[in-house]
Order: sequence, then C-alpha cells, then structure tokens
Amino acid sequence: MDMIEQIITLALSEDSGLGDITSESILEHPRQGSGVIVAKQDCILAGTDAARRTFQMVDPDVTLRFLFQEGDAVSKGDELLRVEGDLLSLLKSERVALNFLQRLSGIATLTHQYVAVLKGHSVKLIDTRKTTPGLRLLEKQAVRAGGGFNHRFSLYDGILIKDNHIAVAGSILAAVQAVKNRMSHLMKIEVEISTMDQVDEALAAGVDVIMLDNMSIQEMAAAVKRICGRALVEASGNVSLTQLRTSLKQGWI
Amino acid sequence: MDMIEQIITLALSEDSGLGDITSESILEHPRQGSGVIVAKQDCILAGTDAARRTFQMVDPDVTLRFLFQEGDAVSKGDELLRVEGDLLSLLKSERVALNFLQRLSGIATLTHQYVAVLKGHSVKLIDTRKTTPGLRLLEKQAVRAGGGFNHRFSLYDGILIKDNHIAVAGSILAAVQAVKNRMSHLMKIEVEISTMDQVDEALAAGVDVIMLDNMSIQEMAAAVKRICGRALVEASGNVSLTQLRTSLKQGWI
Amino acid sequence: MDMIEQIITLALSEDSGLGDITSESILEHPRQGSGVIVAKQDCILAGTDAARRTFQMVDPDVTLRFLFQEGDAVSKGDELLRVEGDLLSLLKSERVALNFLQRLSGIATLTHQYVAVLKGHSVKLIDTRKTTPGLRLLEKQAVRAGGGFNHRFSLYDGILIKDNHIAVAGSILAAVQAVKNRMSHLMKIEVEISTMDQVDEALAAGVDVIMLDNMSIQEMAAAVKRICGRALVEASGNVSLTQLRTSLKQGWI
Amino acid sequence: MDMIEQIITLALSEDSGLGDITSESILEHPRQGSGVIVAKQDCILAGTDAARRTFQMVDPDVTLRFLFQEGDAVSKGDELLRVEGDLLSLLKSERVALNFLQRLSGIATLTHQYVAVLKGHSVKLIDTRKTTPGLRLLEKQAVRAGGGFNHRFSLYDGILIKDNHIAVAGSILAAVQAVKNRMSHLMKIEVEISTMDQVDEALAAGVDVIMLDNMSIQEMAAAVKRICGRALVEASGNVSLTQLRTSLKQGWI
Amino acid sequence: MDMIEQIITLALSEDSGLGDITSESILEHPRQGSGVIVAKQDCILAGTDAARRTFQMVDPDVTLRFLFQEGDAVSKGDELLRVEGDLLSLLKSERVALNFLQRLSGIATLTHQYVAVLKGHSVKLIDTRKTTPGLRLLEKQAVRAGGGFNHRFSLYDGILIKDNHIAVAGSILAAVQAVKNRMSHLMKIEVEISTMDQVDEALAAGVDVIMLDNMSIQEMAAAVKRICGRALVEASGNVSLTQLRTSLKQGWI
Amino acid sequence: MDMIEQIITLALSEDSGLGDITSESILEHPRQGSGVIVAKQDCILAGTDAARRTFQMVDPDVTLRFLFQEGDAVSKGDELLRVEGDLLSLLKSERVALNFLQRLSGIATLTHQYVAVLKGHSVKLIDTRKTTPGLRLLEKQAVRAGGGFNHRFSLYDGILIKDNHIAVAGSILAAVQAVKNRMSHLMKIEVEISTMDQVDEALAAGVDVIMLDNMSIQEMAAAVKRICGRALVEASGNVSLTQLRTSLKQGWI
Repeated sequence: MDMIEQIITLALSEDSGLGDITSESILEHPRQGSGVIVAKQDCILAGTDAARRTFQMVDPDVTLRFLFQEGDAVSKGDELLRVEGDLLSLLKSERVALNFLQRLSGIATLTHQYVAVLKGHSVKLIDTRKTTPGLRLLEKQAVRAGGGFNHRFSLYDGILIKDNHIAVAGSILAAVQAVKNRMSHLMKIEVEISTMDQVDEALAAGVDVIMLDNMSIQEMAAAVKRICGRALVEASGNVSLTQLRTSLKQGWI
Repeated sequence: MDMIEQIITLALSEDSGLGDITSESILEHPRQGSGVIVAKQDCILAGTDAARRTFQMVDPDVTLRFLFQEGDAVSKGDELLRVEGDLLSLLKSERVALNFLQRLSGIATLTHQYVAVLKGHSVKLIDTRKTTPGLRLLEKQAVRAGGGFNHRFSLYDGILIKDNHIAVAGSILAAVQAVKNRMSHLMKIEVEISTMDQVDEALAAGVDVIMLDNMSIQEMAAAVKRICGRALVEASGNVSLTQLRTSLKQGWI
Repeated sequence: MDMIEQIITLALSEDSGLGDITSESILEHPRQGSGVIVAKQDCILAGTDAARRTFQMVDPDVTLRFLFQEGDAVSKGDELLRVEGDLLSLLKSERVALNFLQRLSGIATLTHQYVAVLKGHSVKLIDTRKTTPGLRLLEKQAVRAGGGFNHRFSLYDGILIKDNHIAVAGSILAAVQAVKNRMSHLMKIEVEISTMDQVDEALAAGVDVIMLDNMSIQEMAAAVKRICGRALVEASGNVSLTQLRTSLKQGWI
Repeated sequence: MDMIEQIITLALSEDSGLGDITSESILEHPRQGSGVIVAKQDCILAGTDAARRTFQMVDPDVTLRFLFQEGDAVSKGDELLRVEGDLLSLLKSERVALNFLQRLSGIATLTHQYVAVLKGHSVKLIDTRKTTPGLRLLEKQAVRAGGGFNHRFSLYDGILIKDNHIAVAGSILAAVQAVKNRMSHLMKIEVEISTMDQVDEALAAGVDVIMLDNMSIQEMAAAVKRICGRALVEASGNVSLTQLRTSLKQGWI
Repeated sequence: MDMIEQIITLALSEDSGLGDITSESILEHPRQGSGVIVAKQDCILAGTDAARRTFQMVDPDVTLRFLFQEGDAVSKGDELLRVEGDLLSLLKSERVALNFLQRLSGIATLTHQYVAVLKGHSVKLIDTRKTTPGLRLLEKQAVRAGGGFNHRFSLYDGILIKDNHIAVAGSILAAVQAVKNRMSHLMKIEVEISTMDQVDEALAAGVDVIMLDNMSIQEMAAAVKRICGRALVEASGNVSLTQLRTSLKQGWI
Repeated sequence: MDMIEQIITLALSEDSGLGDITSESILEHPRQGSGVIVAKQDCILAGTDAARRTFQMVDPDVTLRFLFQEGDAVSKGDELLRVEGDLLSLLKSERVALNFLQRLSGIATLTHQYVAVLKGHSVKLIDTRKTTPGLRLLEKQAVRAGGGFNHRFSLYDGILIKDNHIAVAGSILAAVQAVKNRMSHLMKIEVEISTMDQVDEALAAGVDVIMLDNMSIQEMAAAVKRICGRALVEASGNVSLTQLRTSLKQGWI
C-alpha cells in the first residue's frame, strides 16, 4: 500500500469506517446509479489520481470517466468526472473524492496564479515541506499540476543545511564537510543563509544552492549579485502575489 | 493506534521515513538540545495534542512544556511550546509538529472570527464533512477550539437525508420511514431541503432537523417562519463573514 | 481497509498466515474444486457478508452463490452457499467463513426468539456494547438480521450518561448541561438511572431517553408511569426469554 | 504488534476510535480516578492478559492490580482487578477490557466443567479451530486456563488430513505419503476418519493420531479397541456434558 | 494481507513509496511495454511466487508468463519470465521482483548442491531459524525448491528444548515434563544436546528427536550408535559441502 | 512506525507471533535472566540499532549494554552485547536480534575488505538497489559501517537514466531534458552508458554523473580519459576483490 493509498484508506475510514447509516437504511437492496462532478468555479484541476483511487478502493467495479486531465484549466460548469456503479459505493466515495479534488485543485489554482506572474522570467516557483500532514505527495503533485516545481519531498531526498545545523557543526564549512563525508554523490548541497557574510562562507565551502531566508528585496538583489552564478539561488519567506508583481515591475527579479 | 496516531505516523513517514540525511551527517553522536515554538501572528491556538504526540512518537524521552492551552488566544511573539531532548529527535519532529499547529490554529482562528460575529445571537456555527482527508478529527477539534460546534463526524454518527436519498426513496416521507425502521433511537433525523414545499413535507414526516441548502436570505427567513420551532434549522452554503455581518445588521438572523 | 476487512484479515492471518501444511502437501499443483455450506440446524442466517468477503480476500477468483439472504429463516439441511474455485483457496477460507456464519447466525437466531416473543407489543429489542472484541459491527448486523435494533455502535455515536458520569459532574443536571455544551445537535441525550428520584431529575434536565438499569419489574412499571411519554424508556439488565414471557403475560409490558 | 495487540487495537478502535463524546464533555480537564472489577458470578478467571494490555494500550500510566490470577476459581462478589489513573482513560478502557474478561472467563468456566467430569479418567479435553475470528489465541489461552488442552492453533502448526484431503489424494495412504514428503519431521500426522475400514487404512499408513468423527459411542468403543494403542485417538462431534457423564457411567470411556 | 504480501509491501515502499522520479519524468503519458527476465547463470529457480505478486501488487493489469516453474533447474541465458503492461508499473516492479528472484534462487541453488551430495543416503537436509528477518517463509520455500526440508517455521510450530531451557527447568527430564503438560499432542519433542550423558538423559525422558549440536564427526557417530533408532537424530553446526563429502567418503553417514 | 520498526515487527511476527511454546511451557512464572552475545569470528560489527530495537520492542524493560559500537572491528570471542531482563522476553528476542547482527555484520565485513583494498586511491565504494527486500535501510547502514558509501536509497531520491529510459525517450539528450523539466534542482543527473558514443552524448547533454556499465577495464580507462573530469564516473558490474587488486596493481585505477 503506497502513501497515497494510506491517506485514502484513512480518509475513508474516518468517514465511513462503520458504515453510512442514512444510505444503508434507504438502499436496502443494491442499486446501480451514476453521478457527475461539476466545477463550481474556474480552476486548475488536480487530485484526479486520488479521486480515481478513492472510488476504486471503495468498489473496484465502479467505472470512472474523467473529461479533463490533471493540470487542465477548467471552467465553472464543466463536467469533470462521470462515475457509474453501485449507488451505495458512489455515496460512500463521493465526499472523500470531492475533498481531495477541492483541496488539491485549490493548490494547483493558486500555484498557477504565481506561475503566471513569473512567466517570461528566469525564475521557478518551488514548494516547501510546509504541507498538510499526510498529504505531502498529493500536494506536491498539485503544485506541479499548477506549473510549479518541487523542492525536496522529505528529509532524506535532499540536503538543506539550516541555522540549527550550522550552530551544531560550528560553521557553514564544518557543516558542509560533515555532509560531504556522508552524503550520496548524487545530491547537491544547499545552505540557508540570512546575511551577506554567510553568502561568502557558503561560496567558500563550495555549496551548490544558497537559500536567502527572509531577506529584504534589496538584500536579496545584493546577494544575487555577489553569488554571480556560482551557486543556484533560492528566495524564501514573505512571498505574496502582490510583492511578486511589485518586484517584477521594479526589475528586481 | 487511534486515528490521530495514524495521521501522525503517516506524516512522519512521508517526512523522515528513511531518515534525515542532513541532520544525521552533522549529528553523528547523540546530543541534547532544546527549542521554542513562537507565534508569528495573533491566533487561536489549536493542534496542541497532535503536536505533543508528534514529538512523543518520535522520541518518548523528549519533554514538552506548553505555555498556552488549546483554544487560548495567543499574540504574535508569544512562546507557545518549549521542547527539550535529543537534538536529532527534535529536528525530526519539528516540521511535522509545526505543520499540525499552523494548519489547525488557522482553522481555530477563522472559526473564532465567525463565532465573534455571531456572539449574542441564538445561532451556532457548525462545521461539515468537507475536511482535509485524514485530518477530520483534528480539524473538528480545531473548530471547537475556535468556539464552533461540530456537525456529525462521519456517515455513521448522524443521519442526514440529502437530495440523492430522497430521489432513491421516492419522497421525503419514504426516506424518513426507511431510516426510522433501521436507525438507532438515539439519533435525530435531519433532512436537507431547498424549496418551501419540501419544508412542509419534512415537517409532516416528523424530522428533527431541517437544513436549508443554498437558499437566499429571504427564502431562509420565510422557511424559518414556516418551521416555527417545530424542527431545528440549519443554513448551509454561501456563508461568508461579510454576508453574515450584513444579515445580522438587517435583522435577518 | 474497513473494520470488517480488518477482522477478516486477522482471522485469516491467525488461521493460515504461514500456510496450510496439510493441503499444500496434497495439492502440489493447482486444482479446481467446489463446495456447499449446509445448515446443520434451523436458524436465522447471518454473516453472509463476512463469509463472502473471507472467500474473496483469500482469492478474488472464487465464485460464490448464496441461496439464501441475510436474515432469512433457513432449515436444517438447506444449502446456504455454493463456492467454486481453486481448491487450496477454498480449503483456506472454509473454516474462517464458517466461524463467521456460525457465530453470527447464532446471534441472529437468538435475537429472533426474543423478537418473536415481543411481537405485537410496542417494545423494541435493542443491543449493547457488550460485544465480542473486534466483531461489533458484524454482531450488530446479526442483531438486525434477527429483527432487533441497534443501540449506539461506540462511544462516539451516541450519548449515554452513566453513574460514573453523574458522580463526576455532581448531578444529572450538571452532566446533561456539560454534554449539551459540547455535543452535536443531531444526537439525543440518554441517562442511565436506578431510582425514582433520578427519574425526576432526568426529566427536569430535559433528557430524551431514560434507561432503567437493573430495576425490578414493579419499579420499572412505576417509572414508566411517572415518565409518561416525556422521554423514551429503555430497560436494561436481567432480561431473559422466560422473564420476558412472564412479564408480557402479566401485562407488565 | 503481536496478534493480541492487533485484536485489542481493533476493539478499541471500534469502541472509541473517534473519542467518547459523553465522557469528554463531562471531563473537560484531566482527573484521576480508580475502579474495581467485581465478579458477578462464580467462574474461572481468564482474559487477564488481554484486559491488562487493553488498559495499558489506552494509557501506559494506568496502574493495575490483579487480585486473582489467570485460571483461578473466583466467587461472586470477589474483587478481581483494581485500576487507577486518568479517569478518561479508565472509562475508555473499561468496556473493552470487560468484554475480554467476560467472554474468556465464560470459556474457561465451561471448559472447567468438562474437565471436572473427566477427572480421574485418562482422557484429555482438547479444543478446535472453531473459534471466534480474531480471538483464537485468547480463546485457546482460556481453554488452558480452564484445564483443557489445545489442538493445533492453525493450519500451519499441525497436520490433520480430512475427508477433502483424502478425496483429492485418492486414499488415506496417498495423502499420508504426500504429507510425509513435505512436512517437518517434528510433526505428527493425524487423520480424521468415520468408518472402521478407514481405521485400518490409517493404521496401515502409519499415522500418529486418529480422529473418530461423529461416530456413535458404540462405534467409537470398537474403533478404540481395534486401534489398541497403535495411534492416539481423538473423538470429535456431539460431545455434551450430559453425554460425557452417561458415557463415563457406562464405562465407555 | 499475509506475511508474503507484507514483505512485498515493505520492499515496494522502501523502493518507490514516494514514486520513481526518473521514470515518471520520462513517461509523462501512460505507455505499454514488455520485458523479459533472463538467467545470468545456471541455477535452481525460486521466488517465482514473490516475483509474481510483486508485479501484481504494483499493477493488477500486468500480465506475467513464467517459462519455468519454482524448483526447475535453469541455464544461463534461459528466459524465465515475460511481463507485459504499463511501462511505469514494470519499471517500478522490476528491481524488487529481481531482488526476490536472485536471493531466493541463490538459496535454492546452494541447497540443491548439498542435496545432490546427500543423494542416495538416508539423510535429509533441513533448514534453521537463522533466516533473513521478514523473509523466513520465502526462504523456507526456497529451501524446498532446492530439495531440502524445513525444520520448524517459528517458535510456535515445533518444540525444541535447548541448553537455556534445560538450565531453567533443572534437567532434561524436568523440561520434557513441563512441555508435555502444556503442548499439543500433535507435536514431537526435540532436545538439543552436546554430550553423551545428555543422550542417555534424553532417551530416558522419552523425546522424539535429538539434535547433536556442534559435536565432532566421531562423537556424532558414537551418539547415533547409542540412540540406535530410539529417536530421530539431527546434526547441527559446522556442516560444509567439503565436510559432508569427506564424511560420506569415510562412511560416517 | 518507521521502516526499521516495520521489518522488526515482521521478523518478530514470523518468529513468535503466536508465542514460543517451548519456553512458555518451561517458564510458567516470570523469571529474570541475562545473556551475552559473543562474536564467533573477526568482523566489523553492524546491526546494533536493529538488535537493540528488537529487544526493546519485545519488552521495553530489558536493559542492553553494547560493549562495541556500530562499525567497530571486533575479534572472535569478544563480548558484543549484554542483555538483562525477563527471561521469556530474552528468549523471544534472541534469534531475531542475532539474525540482524549476523547478516548486517557480514555485509559490513565484506564492504570493509573492499574498502581496505581501495585505501589510498581516489575511488569510493558505493552500493546499489540490489538489496534484500525490506532490509534496504539496514543494509545501507551496514555498508557505511564497513566504510562504504551509499548510492541512492530508492527510486525517489536520485536520478539514474538507464537504457530503458533512453529507449523510451528516444535519446540520452531527450531523457535528460525530460528529467530536467520535472526534477528538483537539488539533484544531480546520472546516466548509465555502455559505449564510447554514449559517453559523448551524455557529456553533451550536461549530465553530472556517468555510470560505465559492464565495460572491460580497458574500455573504462578510455572512457575516464574521455570524460576527463567533466562528470563524476561510476563503474558497475563484474567488480570482485580479485579483479580490484589486479586493476590497482596494473595502475588502471
């Protein structure tokens, strides 16, 4: 059972683990039925895989036909998904499938708004580990559906040296060395820094990626200049749509 | 393992199931440490139970001291939680615990804003089953922390007859009868209706609660008048803070 | 995996988790076979769902044909179920499926005897939480198959204030208030009482259901008279078929 | 998590997986408490291990003191177990722990009645695989608590050749050969037979144990005589306390 | 989910629980494909069941055709298995399926070399509990595929009294008595001994099997002579192919 | 429950899930005991974490004292671990803990032999995904204990473009582009190649790491020369201790 099946299992369990007393009372005998999921507002569709699996885990005999694909821009009123099968199964799956679709399409849609603003600039929108517990894989898929990119998925598929690590190791250099002694040669090393001095230290230590954390636009501009292509640069913190538009207008990005 | 431990397990697994390569490289030998979680904005605190259990499931020897309780109003800069223990354990738990606290305090804070508007009126704010998959129990706790009330938790602890059920049964009356033949006598019967005729039908069938779904304020006012205390009334759909304030000003609630 | 699949999984695991050494020795090569499950005494059939799922979880290619339905009265010698498929799968499923059918049909049959005695009287037979650990959902289905009704399924889908709760809260009234402050408005409030004074207290507190616990027939008659329709009444404890018949003969029910 | 923890987990999950709404409403703040479990009738105590673990899985800080041990004969009114700890934990564990104790003590008590009848005779009472799904390990412990012995626990820790196996293999001899080619040399071979011819066949095939299935007392007596110590003998089917007493009086056992 | 499905689940989870970033990048749209698994050296094929289930658990729509059976001797270059289906599913399953096949065929092949040496002698090759954690059932199947026999699978399907048990019980006799008081009559009793005195003790206690542990060839020969058919004999420790060949040449076995 | 706890759970379950009939018969009453694990040959110690957790998962009250650390070189006869606690718990944990220690120390010891040969050369020994199903994390720890380095842990924490991927994408360049469009910027790109032309293609596509698969020593030398530091180089296949020593003597590495 992969991670997505685990969260679907949990979601079904909390919603109908002991049954659906209303529907079971009314549907004493099995009965076929069908349903359509319709968009209530314009959005970027995401969560189709989770929704499909939700119906199929409840009842493998339910048939689904998606009329749009993951990442498609859909309009208010568009039919997204047609389902057919045992009515009790449909009623049991419906709310959970919708909860996935609504939440994940919301993420894809917001991501898409940021990506649209950044279009034509050499900047990528990337996500974080600040995801809803248990839904990371799905939320990261939704970010991609919206045109964004993923940062690391977890603490084991990417190296990010933060202030705590630097404090423990003694210096950026010491932290980078410790990591190099142990890490796979397939990974790049990223350091999170917040002052210009740390930029120099990080470059001297030979890191691959530098994250500028909670700096002002002006400080970031200075840091990017100093780094001058010697490492990839990430900016983190206080990034809103408004601020992004201003920065672009000012030529800061 | 209860539902909350299941979602914490899943969250830890997706974040550090194969380890934390950065921290493990730097912390080759066990080392004690401590940390403080501080509020970055005013909010109603929620998720304290999930956060506590996250730290303890990673390492039962970590000690936690909460400086505020679930449901407390905290201010930007307030220290919320102090943790102490093995540094590797703290670093492994931190992000997951914060993800619970941030998301759930957000829900409690927004709930509280609605509840504040409704104060002094004989109306209760109640939640729905439109929750994040896997987090229902926690999100419903957060609603209570914010001063709201819970509707049913799942399809098995409350009866709610919806349009689909009515269509299958043939009529509101038939649906109510079917449910009464099967249900526990400890439960009330709720019907979701959208026209005035259905209000009459529902009252005639002897339901305990009537949910007015997606009606206009005027229609709702008329329905409440017709019901006249013979059943509890719920209003669902299109409820925003702005609309709530307007309705109250107009004396509609 | 819902609760029923969990108990089936556990049952299969304890019976054949490491294989079936006898059958595997004799059936070195796959072989098709069939079998019939026959009633060894008159009974009310229950557990058909669990039995069906047991065979299908062992091997989705086994075909089943039930000749009777859940809740049917069957006679000694009746063929209940025909199964066909891989012989090893049938031998692995057989005992577990039978264990479900035998136990659950036993419950349905006994329930039906009580229900038969009560026929024509305005009394419903309801069950309790005193069920076999892990089989609650199935045993409650068997009670319904036998014509009985279900009390709450768990501690979260019904409110029942017992002596312990009253002691903690200080009084019936205080307990009822505490519950009302927190509970969903879809639930009724039940109080378990054992004296006539408590009946008055409960009525004053506005409870919906009163359970008379371990009272004598005479006391119960007095209590019912006092309650006089202001709350639903449940009688609990010392209810045997013999006592029930006597009480009905005496006109006590 | 061993099998017993799995069934306890399932039992707790079905009873309080989403909480205990009554107790949680009344016990808003943690509170210490204590309780005593008292025997309501004379019985052989069983299920103490499952009961202990139930309390401890809900809350490791609950303290338990058993006043009797597994297998002890206890009298109506005896205090069996004292528990102390967080009141909410006690209320959550109580019903599940009692369900284990009541069911398993019932099995031990009935077993003990049979064993008492057999006392002084060279006959052992042994159990079967006809156990409640998910509780096999516990029910087999209860049989031992009552003085009985266990037959095999599952399909993988004992060899029992039944009619189906004989039919597939072609003859008792062929079945025994197939098993000997594959089985561990640590196991004995048992065959279930129902005619005197089969007794001869089984002895010729060199089996270790012969089960006489559903034979009359007279037939069994003849079979035992024929076997004459060359194999262990089991009798299965239609064994009631009454029949056992009669058989002993007649000198058939 | 049986034990084999549990280890496959774990293996898939550790290999692709969060996806396959390389293949998913390249295979944006579903695509059918096929593959062949070819033997890279002569061996006894084992692990076919685990390999089949691995592909099917990843994707039930993958079709497999095994060209050889469990236990067959295959030659370098032989095609063993053809798979066909969704390419992403094949790439996800491939490494895990191969890891099972390679490891288990290795065990079967080595077992077969020992068995070949023993051919024509009245000695059976049996395995131990010194198996890879989590793979016991599969490794024991591989031993049988190679022509070996299984000793007990676990601590609950066979009795083996070791030095620790003898020390606790006080003597071999006391240990055997304790076991007889509790054990199923379907099991034989085995004792592990290391001196000639213990052989006599064991025989006197009536054990069924005697394991000679870490004795020299000469001591073993003497012990076998003393036992003289009164119990089955096992030899354990320091058994290599070379030593086995020597012993046979010398007529010790 | 992290991955290591899952494999330990599975290992305990297959070994003593239904109990330990021998020890439980002899140890009817709880009894304290102690034990020592001693090295039977010189080796590099590994698996200490898994062994520790095995004892503690069986019984948290067992105390352990390791006399050596993970990665230490120990000699035949050295005491490695002392355990103390309930005797039944020790007997239940012993075999599983030893199975971890023996297998993992074997891996560390062999790794160490390779690493010793490579000492003083600018070559690192790295592992693969050809690990025992379910034990990957532990086996990778053992490789590090022996002085080796880890390649990627799974399909999601490293990018490795193989022949299948190249075939699907159409060319190395197309595969690299597809991966760059989707991958995290924290990862390097590795391509597995087997001809000199592919070396050029890979360099042109800008990959970070090139794996030379199953090439002869001469071909590898030529490839390394051609790559000339523009990418990291890995050699895979046919690497034995003997071949390694020869290559070093010849100056090929």
